[in-house]
Amino acid sequence: MDMPTVQAATITHHDRPAGLLTPVLTKEKSMTIKRINVGPRMCQAVVYNGVVSTAGQVAQNAGGGTAAEQTADILSAIDALLAEAGTDKSKLLTATIWLADMADFAGLNSVWDKWVVPGATPTRACVESKLAAPQFTVEIAVTAAVA
Amino acid sequence: MDMPTVQAATITHHDRPAGLLTPVLTKEKSMTIKRINVGPRMCQAVVYNGVVSTAGQVAQNAGGGTAAEQTADILSAIDALLAEAGTDKSKLLTATIWLADMADFAGLNSVWDKWVVPGATPTRACVESKLAAPQFTVEIAVTAAVA
Amino acid sequence: MDMPTVQAATITHHDRPAGLLTPVLTKEKSMTIKRINVGPRMCQAVVYNGVVSTAGQVAQNAGGGTAAEQTADILSAIDALLAEAGTDKSKLLTATIWLADMADFAGLNSVWDKWVVPGATPTRACVESKLAAPQFTVEIAVTAAVA
Repeated sequence: MDMPTVQAATITHHDRPAGLLTPVLTKEKSMTIKRINVGPRMCQAVVYNGVVSTAGQVAQNAGGGTAAEQTADILSAIDALLAEAGTDKSKLLTATIWLADMADFAGLNSVWDKWVVPGATPTRACVESKLAAPQFTVEIAVTAAVA
Repeated sequence: MDMPTVQAATITHHDRPAGLLTPVLTKEKSMTIKRINVGPRMCQAVVYNGVVSTAGQVAQNAGGGTAAEQTADILSAIDALLAEAGTDKSKLLTATIWLADMADFAGLNSVWDKWVVPGATPTRACVESKLAAPQFTVEIAVTAAVA
Repeated sequence: MDMPTVQAATITHHDRPAGLLTPVLTKEKSMTIKRINVGPRMCQAVVYNGVVSTAGQVAQNAGGGTAAEQTADILSAIDALLAEAGTDKSKLLTATIWLADMADFAGLNSVWDKWVVPGATPTRACVESKLAAPQFTVEIAVTAAVA
């Protein structure tokens, strides 16, 4: 929520000098950075300014499986990241999809088309790029609104 | 506009319990999601939090044409999407461009360089990736500020 | 900071009719577009709504060098762009990395892993795409929060 008003502004005692009576207004929560599953190289998702962005997700359990299997695995991981960010796939904004081989386009879509929420589909770009390891045929990164 | 003031705050009766006199302030309009050209797989653009993001656009009418022809076709579609979002190319923020063959770099730029607004050029990344179908040689996705 | 308060709001005399005593509150600064290193084709970074997005950066000085050398060169350029935007790598949100050859994954990471701030790593997607010219083996674009 980027709409603070005097009434809505949260009053905090954090960093408030003892004895000071004037309330200190907090910075908007949404302008802080929340990182999810932080590793030494990257995090898996970041929430900032009302938007969550996921890292490019590859299959955790289905590496080496079909494109459809890998897509299902990835979308399940994305569901979990969105939940951790406090949102869900009905709030998707954008998706970027990389296929190691565009021949997997139909396999990807067979799972994707059932996963997205009718009427709430995100923008999408789907292009061919080889991925970090040969067992991965699909990689997907999304952004979503966080209420 | 993310700068509400007490004067500017919209009062809504939505979700207001009967009999409650205290006005309920609406969420910023810009924090709602507006989707443009929504299909079962994706939408063509999404507006949220003051930013419009387009899907990756490929030539609608010039598939199989030269890279310059496809670029002109795509940029025309982007102009239309930006207009529908309430903005225009002078507010572009970012562009991502995929060329199926980097040999088309000059053809792309011959059209791109005339299309962008001097002094208001977006960031850009242009890389080589094969696209969803072989008749497409150029794909472009942009983001722009929505006033 | 997207959280204006009456106290924090800047009073401007711009567009203020003569004789009007009521102060006019300015639009949030962060909703204006700030472009950095603007060229005729693209700019190198854009700041809007509390986020800076960089263009895809390739090695300025190390073209033709190893992937590690190019990565170091690029990350140095990104540090400079983030500084110009008023932020730094501890506020990174997302990174997109293109390698002309995924064989350079280890070389990239040897520099990347030392550059990122522990606990503040961004999301990342790293895929293989040929770049604008053959001497470039690495291209990186990032976004970061601007306080």
